[in-house]
Parts: sequence; C-alpha cells; structure tokens
Amino acid sequence: MKDGMNSRLLLDCAKSCILASSPVFRRQQFLIRCVEGSIDHQPLSRDMQVLRSIEVDPENLIRAITPALDHTRHKGQAGNIAVIGGCREYTGAPYFAAISALKLGADLSHVFCTKDAAPVIKSYSPELIVHPVLEESYGVGEENKRSISSKVLAEVDKWMERFDCLVVGPGLGRDPFLLDCVSELMRHARQSNIPIVIDGDGLFLVTNNIDLVRGYPLAVLTPNVNEYKRLVQKVLNSEVNNEDAPQQLISLAKQIGGVTILRKGNSDLISDGNSVQAVSIYGSPRRCGGQGDILSGSVGVFLSWARKHILSADSKSHLSNKNPTVLGCIAGSTILRKAASLAFLKKKRSTVTGDIIECLGQCLEDISPAS
Amino acid sequence: MKDGMNSRLLLDCAKSCILASSPVFRRQQFLIRCVEGSIDHQPLSRDMQVLRSIEVDPENLIRAITPALDHTRHKGQAGNIAVIGGCREYTGAPYFAAISALKLGADLSHVFCTKDAAPVIKSYSPELIVHPVLEESYGVGEENKRSISSKVLAEVDKWMERFDCLVVGPGLGRDPFLLDCVSELMRHARQSNIPIVIDGDGLFLVTNNIDLVRGYPLAVLTPNVNEYKRLVQKVLNSEVNNEDAPQQLISLAKQIGGVTILRKGNSDLISDGNSVQAVSIYGSPRRCGGQGDILSGSVGVFLSWARKHILSADSKSHLSNKNPTVLGCIAGSTILRKAASLAFLKKKRSTVTGDIIECLGQCLEDISPAS
Repeated sequence: MKDGMNSRLLLDCAKSCILASSPVFRRQQFLIRCVEGSIDHQPLSRDMQVLRSIEVDPENLIRAITPALDHTRHKGQAGNIAVIGGCREYTGAPYFAAISALKLGADLSHVFCTKDAAPVIKSYSPELIVHPVLEESYGVGEENKRSISSKVLAEVDKWMERFDCLVVGPGLGRDPFLLDCVSELMRHARQSNIPIVIDGDGLFLVTNNIDLVRGYPLAVLTPNVNEYKRLVQKVLNSEVNNEDAPQQLISLAKQIGGVTILRKGNSDLISDGNSVQAVSIYGSPRRCGGQGDILSGSVGVFLSWARKHILSADSKSHLSNKNPTVLGCIAGSTILRKAASLAFLKKKRSTVTGDIIECLGQCLEDISPAS
Repeated sequence: MKDGMNSRLLLDCAKSCILASSPVFRRQQFLIRCVEGSIDHQPLSRDMQVLRSIEVDPENLIRAITPALDHTRHKGQAGNIAVIGGCREYTGAPYFAAISALKLGADLSHVFCTKDAAPVIKSYSPELIVHPVLEESYGVGEENKRSISSKVLAEVDKWMERFDCLVVGPGLGRDPFLLDCVSELMRHARQSNIPIVIDGDGLFLVTNNIDLVRGYPLAVLTPNVNEYKRLVQKVLNSEVNNEDAPQQLISLAKQIGGVTILRKGNSDLISDGNSVQAVSIYGSPRRCGGQGDILSGSVGVFLSWARKHILSADSKSHLSNKNPTVLGCIAGSTILRKAASLAFLKKKRSTVTGDIIECLGQCLEDISPAS
C-alpha cells in the first residue's frame, strides 16, 4: 500500500475524480482505511468490506507520534492544551477533556470557563489551570457587552500563542453572548494557526456558522449521531445516508473546505475530505455520559503530537505526507476505545467516565512504553 | 405458586374480598412474598411466618430486568434519572441518590437543586449533571414568586421527557416556596407519565398533600419509621399497627389509589395495595445516614429497567403481569442490603455511605454479570 493502490481503490479514486499528480494523489487518495481490532462487533457496510485495508496501523501511529521522554525536555514540550468550556450548568465535561489531556501526557492543561464554573472545575483537580474569564448574558448588561467581550478576548489572547491546541465546546452551553465571544476566540486561534477540536456545544455554534471553520485545515469536528445529522442537513442540505456513510463524510468534509470530521458511532469514521479511516476496535458497551469529552481532549493531544512529529520528522517518516488532524483523530479514537474496554473489564456496569480516564495512561503505556 | 395459591393464602384473599377473574386475581392477589436470605436477623411477624412464600426471587428479578449491554445501545438507553433535591442546608443526599443511579449502570444522572447547593454537589463528582434551578423563599420577593416559579418549571420541563424516573426529596428541605415549585414539577411529571420515587422531604410534601400522588400508579413512596407513622396518621387516621403490618400497608397503598409504598425497616415491606412483598436479606448493622438516598436512586433505576423490560418483553416473561414499581422496590431494597453487607465486611464500624455506593457495582455484577 505504500506506493500504490490496488485496483478496487483505484476504481474508487477514479469515481471520485480526484486523481492527480503523484504527491497530490498520495495526499488525496480516496482510501477507506479500516482499522480492525480482535473483536469486530458489527458488520461493516458494503464500502468498508470492499475496502478493508490498513494503511495507518493505529498502534504504530501512536508509537510514532508519542514524544520521547528524556531529561532534555522542558515543561510544555509534550503539549499545552486549552479547553474552552464550562458554564453555570456544565462543569464535568471541560474537566473530563482537560484532565484526559494531562493523563495522556500533556504537560499543561488549561480550562477557560465562566466565573461560576471555575471554582467547581478547580475543585475537581488541582492539576488543571482554570481561568474564570468567560461571561454569560445574565451577568452582562447590553451596554457593557462590547467592553466585556474585548476583555475576554484579551485574557485568552495572552495565552493563545502558547497553546498547541484548543478544544472548544465541552460544557460550553448555548448562551448567545458567550458563544459570540467564543466565535471571536476561534477567529484569533485561526490567525495563529492553532488547531481547534470542536465538540458538544461548540458544534452547535459551528453548525450555525460554518464560516468559523470553513477552509481551516487545522479544525477537527467530532459530532455524535445527532450533531452529525444537523451538520449534514445544514451543509449538504440532505439527510444522513448510512448506506454510503464514507462517501457522504468525505463530501461533508470537502464541502467545509477540508476540515477533519470524526463521526462518532459504533465505528468512528474520520475524514478530511480526501480519505476515510474507520476505527472499529471494540470499546465498551457502557454508554455513560462524558466519553466524548475524553475523546476531544485526547484528539487535542495526539494531533499536537502528530503535528510536531511531522514538522520535525525527516523525510523518511512514513507519516510525513499525512494530515496530522486525521492522525490525531485515529489515535484519539483508538486510545479512548482501549481505555473504555479496560475500564469496563474492571468496573463493568458501574464504569463511569472517571474510571475510563484512569485507564488512559496504562493503555498508552501498553502501546508506547515511556522508557 | 405460579398458577395457584395454597389454602392459607386463598383464605387471606377471601378476607380481602379482592378475588376476581383469573388475570385480575393474579394481578391483585393478596400475597405476602417473603424473600429471605441466609441470615435471618429477626423473627418475622405472625403473618409473615404463615405466609412465607416466594413468588418473585429478587436475584432472578434483577437478572431479568437489568438490560443487556451491547454495542447497539445509545447513551441514555440504560437509564436517565433526575434527582430533585439539594438546598442550602443539604447537599449530600441528592449526590448519594444520583451517583448510586450511575454506579448501578444508568447512563445519565441529573440533579435539580438550588443555586447555593449546585456548586457543592457538582464538586462531589464531575459525573453528575447538576442544574442550579430551584429557589428558596429567602431569595425570592413576594412579587416575583409567580415569574420565578414559571422559570423553574420551564427549566425542568426542557428536560422532562428525557427522564426515565424522577427521584423527589433527597435533601430537598422544607422551604414553602421551593416545595410549591416541586409540587408543580410533580404534576408535570404525572402528565408525562414519568415515574416518581419520593423520599425524605418529598414525603413531608406528599404527606401534607396526598393528592400529588393519589391514583398515580407510577409513584413510589419510601418512608422510614417516622415518615411512615405520619403517613398512616394522615391517610388512615390511625396509629401504626406492627402486629398486622402487611395488611395496614396494603390498606395505606390502596387508600392512596394504588401508589407503591416501600416501608423501610428491619424487613422492607413493599405494597401497591394488592400484595405485600418483604425483603429481609441481611444488610448491615451500620446505620450511617444516607442509605435511604442510595435506596431511592436504586429504586429509580430498577423501576425504569423493570418498566422497559415489561413494555418490551414478549408475553412469555414471567414478569409481564407484575407492577414495575413493585419490582423496582424489591430490586432496589435487595441491592442496597447486599452492598451494605459487603461494605460492612470491608470497613466495619468505619463504613460510610460512600463505601456502600462503591459496592453497588460488584453486587450487581455478582447477580447479573455484564458480559
């Protein structure tokens, strides 16, 4: 698979009319990469069965991008992640995303949330850096909105350049004034070329204003079933087509200008508009809320690592022609599923999201030992 | 016992004058079902000794209603529970009830509490979704009561249809304005046919306004000794009769129009006005506060599961003619006692409610392995 594609794949490539010169071809190949674990819990769709081929083995990928640990490294080099989320109503989600980043090996994990949410999120863990800077409408008079919005932006901008990735949305809520501020934050992050993983209420925001991410290759959307449905309706003006899910996902990602989309489901499907990769290794049958937050934090860390790996790797790296946001999604999806599986072995029905987070480290160590 | 009753039971049935056609007879049979464990810690009353018979084995019951876990399930399908409780004074009780639901396998667990209580309850665990929506009188001017009450109701109504069960009362307090709002919430839940488990201060509320639950078969009351005493005085206008406890419990449940009552005691007695079931397996001699909250959360989960099981089960299910609220009480009482027993083995006098909650998962796993 390294230098070419088999005839079935070529046929699909021809269909999609995206064959071009060799480097572009490699980058844009129309490839369904299907990563299977030992337990395949559901039959794959027609397309997936036809195109069952592995180009990126997720464990090899994780080993390749996970940074070596040695005494020469400085604080922050293994990742500095910022979660934008946490409001009066929701505090668990941003905590799960931020602590997952730390537990995977990021050096620093920040949360930017409302003033009401900050003491609670701080109380979950002294490991996080929690900034009480966001404001909801109820605390802001109409006449102050402009000045408060500027202040919020200035507070986050002070830190922006230091972040390897923003995770926007866990527990963000839907307050209009808050979402306006976050839209502006996303524009600033784009100007600084900082990757943005968007989940939860961040997807609500983006679905209603696609231009926030349109054409930004460092944006990752991680919709669940319902969020994906709204996104397809809004962008493609059609309904979800499960019969040809990979093709529709490619169309969607392409339509938004090459953002990466991780469509969560029994198999997670990942596309940047050029290829589709499925992650189907078995996770857990437990559906406790919060697992999506682990995923968004994990994708944030892995895509940062993949980006650094690719930027620093010599030309021999087999990943150098890959999209780091796609690699981050493959790695994040894989580690969540492995951790969920391990937690379920231990805690069974009683498994909660915190139990899964406690398994992240061991799962990463099993794949990529720290020393 | 499946298709008939012995002569003693028939005699009791005749006494109660509720013999009717066969299906009605089965549903309304006047049966004392006495579930005994290996350690019988106190002599049963005369009636219980006479009528020691098991129709529903609680472990078989738990196995039957606990939903299978598989990859096809979505978040929420294993249960979405809401606890209404938590005020300036009390925060532990709603946490215990809500986290117990999660630890038994519910997917989502919400708490609706006052604004003062919310940050504290949130800080106990990021796993819960805590809504700071209730208001106490001290924060509400007379002129604002109507608008604030409407706002509280609207906040909860947004979520109402998603809940499989409300647990009303843990740490609710007795503030008159707050209780008025909760009364209205209960009326809305009834309109949506959502089961309601009522404990603690919720029982104070209901005892003073029986119409809130009268004739609602999806209501469960879980009174302790004192709460039961007040209920008997109010509804039956008499004192508690321990000599004929099962008969009095049946009369009480019938008088309130077929609600289910779980009378907590050395043996828990459960009745919906048609039959009485006792759960007497040995729990723990430790009487740390909070065990009633575990019970209310557990009953909420199990009755939701029982209801789904019965609604979806084919006609062959041996539970299809049973009352799901009664089944939920039997299962909840059983799992609490087993967990309390296991926790006491480990922690002895030092056992606190959190230790019992940590044993819920293992006890359920012992009875109904997740895979």
